[in-house]
Amino acid sequence: MEDRFEISMLLDYYSSLLTEKQLNIMNLYYNEDLSLAEIADLNNTSRQATFDLIKRCSKQLSAYEEKLKLLDKYRQRVILKEEILGKLSTDKNLTKEQIDLIDRNIDEIINA
Amino acid sequence: MEDRFEISMLLDYYSSLLTEKQLNIMNLYYNEDLSLAEIADLNNTSRQATFDLIKRCSKQLSAYEEKLKLLDKYRQRVILKEEILGKLSTDKNLTKEQIDLIDRNIDEIINA
Repeated sequence: MEDRFEISMLLDYYSSLLTEKQLNIMNLYYNEDLSLAEIADLNNTSRQATFDLIKRCSKQLSAYEEKLKLLDKYRQRVILKEEILGKLSTDKNLTKEQIDLIDRNIDEIINA
Repeated sequence: MEDRFEISMLLDYYSSLLTEKQLNIMNLYYNEDLSLAEIADLNNTSRQATFDLIKRCSKQLSAYEEKLKLLDKYRQRVILKEEILGKLSTDKNLTKEQIDLIDRNIDEIINA
């Protein structure tokens, strides 16, 4: 399975495309850090069935990212922001307060 | 069917989730402005089958937007940008050139 952190990030972007059951199990595994055995117990199912579901959902999330690239675009936006702030901070006529204000405002845009 | 312009915008965001055939027909209808009869001819199919496919795809695009809200978020970003630029333009210490630079840079972020 893919990197835990990566899948957990993909969940932030594509959870709305999973079913309620899938999302519940993915959250328990990737965000609540429960073990496969614990999740299987909670859902009255086997460890293997739980593992298969998680593996299938992870693939699905990666397939969505492959197509829509929402996480990738988020990362590009963060890099572009750093580039702007870098440029602005060399502008002697801008105060630190002005740059901080722009920084916070662009963060709002990125996270919209 | 939904508003032509809205569907054409949704195509910009979710085309990667359609099959090649679906995308081709949706483009001919919404972006190239061909008639149902013309598209049916090109694809050796009936006007009705073409209409059904377009209707089904449009619903699919709206369902993705309902879940992921990418077009909605894009619009929110544009509004947030206008708000920042509004705030910055009242700052007497910023030149028009500085504001234009910030404007262009934020556009890059929005469109990333």
